[in-house]
Amino acid sequence: MTAPSHLALVPFISVDNMMRFVLHVGLERILTELASEIEADFRRWESFDKTPRVASHSDVGVIELMPTSDGEFYGFKYVNGHPKNMQAGLQTVTAFGVLADVATGYPLLLSEMTILTALRTAATSAMAAKHLAPKGAHTMAMIGNGAQSEFQALAFRALCGIEHVRLYDIDPAATRKCAANLEGTGLRITPCKSAEAAMEGAQIITTCTADKQCATILTDNMVGSGVHINAIGGDCPGKTELHRDILLRSDIFVEYTPQTRIEGEIQQLDADHPVTELWRVIAGQAPGRTGAKQITLFDGVGFAIEDFAALRYVHARVKGTSFVQNLDMIADPDDPRDLYGMLMRAKG
Amino acid sequence: MTAPSHLALVPFISVDNMMRFVLHVGLERILTELASEIEADFRRWESFDKTPRVASHSDVGVIELMPTSDGEFYGFKYVNGHPKNMQAGLQTVTAFGVLADVATGYPLLLSEMTILTALRTAATSAMAAKHLAPKGAHTMAMIGNGAQSEFQALAFRALCGIEHVRLYDIDPAATRKCAANLEGTGLRITPCKSAEAAMEGAQIITTCTADKQCATILTDNMVGSGVHINAIGGDCPGKTELHRDILLRSDIFVEYTPQTRIEGEIQQLDADHPVTELWRVIAGQAPGRTGAKQITLFDGVGFAIEDFAALRYVHARVKGTSFVQNLDMIADPDDPRDLYGMLMRAKG
Repeated sequence: MTAPSHLALVPFISVDNMMRFVLHVGLERILTELASEIEADFRRWESFDKTPRVASHSDVGVIELMPTSDGEFYGFKYVNGHPKNMQAGLQTVTAFGVLADVATGYPLLLSEMTILTALRTAATSAMAAKHLAPKGAHTMAMIGNGAQSEFQALAFRALCGIEHVRLYDIDPAATRKCAANLEGTGLRITPCKSAEAAMEGAQIITTCTADKQCATILTDNMVGSGVHINAIGGDCPGKTELHRDILLRSDIFVEYTPQTRIEGEIQQLDADHPVTELWRVIAGQAPGRTGAKQITLFDGVGFAIEDFAALRYVHARVKGTSFVQNLDMIADPDDPRDLYGMLMRAKG
Repeated sequence: MTAPSHLALVPFISVDNMMRFVLHVGLERILTELASEIEADFRRWESFDKTPRVASHSDVGVIELMPTSDGEFYGFKYVNGHPKNMQAGLQTVTAFGVLADVATGYPLLLSEMTILTALRTAATSAMAAKHLAPKGAHTMAMIGNGAQSEFQALAFRALCGIEHVRLYDIDPAATRKCAANLEGTGLRITPCKSAEAAMEGAQIITTCTADKQCATILTDNMVGSGVHINAIGGDCPGKTELHRDILLRSDIFVEYTPQTRIEGEIQQLDADHPVTELWRVIAGQAPGRTGAKQITLFDGVGFAIEDFAALRYVHARVKGTSFVQNLDMIADPDDPRDLYGMLMRAKG
C-alpha cells in the first residue's frame, strides 16, 4: 500500500491544538482579529451565497448545518444546541467545521469549533456594539454567566472599551465561576443578586442564557433609554429572552433576516416588523445609532458568514504549523476514475 | 494539561482504514449488507426527518450537504461534484460524513465517504433493480465506465444475479480500465464500441456518466420494451442523460420526489408528472414492475437516507476495532459551563 498523496490529507485542528493556538496568539488579540475578519466579510455581504441554517429539531435540542460560500472558499459548521446536556456534564453547544476549495470541492481544513464558535460569537457581538452602542460606554450587564460569558466580557473590553461588567445568573455558581475566571483580567467585576441590579448604570446589556423556551429575562420596565442590548441567547424557534414590549421600543439589528425571523427575539413580532441587517450599517448603507435616547438591539443568532470568517482566519494562521495534523480523509487514486483499482491494490 | 475525556474523542475512519475494512469483510458482502440496511431504512421512510440536500453551485461544480435523522441518530454527508476535476488528476466526487447522537448532539463517527458513497450508490441501484427489473435478468449494459462502474457491476451480480456486463464509454481508456478491473470476478465482460451495441440483449441498462450538462446518452429508439433503466448519472440541475421521450414511455421511480424534481432526469418533465417513490414499493404501498413490456426507470440521484444507513452500518461494524482512530474533536470541560477555564488551564 502506498502512502496517501498530499491531496488526500486534510489539515485538522484538534481541541488541544486550538487551545494551544489561542494561548499562543493571545485571547484578546484573537478576538480583535476575528472581529476584523468578520467585519470585512459583512462589508462584502452581497458576494456570499447565503441560506438559513438547516436545522434538525428534537424534543431535547437541535443539530444544525450552517453553510456559506464567497465563490472562492466554501465553509460549513456542524453545531448542536442541547440545553439539558449541562445536567449530564456535557456541553450545551459543541461544534466543528470545514473550509473547502470551491474550484475543486476538496476540503482544506477540518477544525474543532466549540472554542472557535465561542470566540466568533463574542467577536461578532462586540463588533456589532462598536457600531451600535452609545459612545463612551464603560459598563456592561451580563445576564447569563455560562460558557459564553467570559468571551463576551473580554471581547467587549478589547473592542468597545468596556471596563466594568455586572454579572447575574439564576444559578449563583455560574456567576462565581465567571467572576473567578475574569479575576486578574483588568476588568472590574460586580456579581449581582438580580438582573435588575446587574443593569444599574450599564450602557450595554448582554443576555446570554441557555434555556430552550420563551423566557423573559428582561421586562420592559427594566430597560432605560439609550442603552444597547446584545441579545444572543434567543437563537432558535421557541427560545427568546426579552419581553416583546422591549422589542417594540428598540431599533432592531440582525444578521440575516430570513434566519432571524425564525430563530431570534423577533420571532415574537409580525413578520414584516422593520429590522436592519447589520452588514448594511457596516457598509454605510443604513444608519446605526442615531440618537442618545435610542435603544439599539442586536438580535444575534449566529450566522454562517461568521463561521466562514473564523475558519478562513484560522486556516491562514495555522497552515504549515504544528497546530495542525493531517488526516487521510479524501480518497485519491492515481487515476481518478480508478477508485476500485485503488481499493483492490490496497490488498497488497 | 490533562488528556481529553472519552466524550471529546470522535472515532474516525480514514481512507486507508475504510479500504482495510472493505477488504476485510469482502466487497460483495459489504454491498449486500449495505443494500439490506438501506432497504430496511427505506421501509421505515416515514420515520425520517427529510430535506432536499443543500447545494452550493459554482461554474465548475457543486458542494452539497445531505442531512437526515430518524430521531435516534443524525447523519450528514459532505459531497462535491466537479466533472473537470478528472482532467487535473482529482476525483470528480469526494465525500466524508458524520453520524451523531440526537439525544446529546455529540458526533459518534467521522468517516471518509468517497469509497462509502461508491458502495452505497451501487447498493441502492441494485436494491432498486431487485424490485423493478424483469425477472431472470442476466445481462446489464453499462454506459459510462468511470469510478462508479465496477461497484455497480458487482452490486448487480451480488443482488440481482447479473452474469454479463456490456461496457461502453466515450473514452475507450475508461472501458479498458473497467474491463481489466472486473477480470477474474466471474462476470462476463464485453467492451462495446457504442451505447447501442452495449444495449444488445441487456435487460438492465445502467447509465453513469459524469458530464455536467443535459446529454442524451440514450435516445428513444435505443430502448426496447421490458427493460429496467438504472439512471444514476443525471444527478444535479442541468445534468441529465436520457432523452425526454424515454421518460414518457417509462414508469419512473425516485428516491425523494422534491429533490429528484430538481436534480434527476425528471427535471425535463412537468412538475406534476407522476412518479413513484421507491420506498412505497419496498413497503408494499405501491406496485413495482407490473408487466413484461413495461419500461421501469430508477431515476437515482442519491439521497441522505442512503448515507445515513451506510454510516450506521460502518459505525456498528467498526466500533472498538482497529479500523478507527480517535480524534480530539469536541471540547469537553469538566464543568460544561467553564469552557474559558478549560482554555486557560491548558496553559499549565
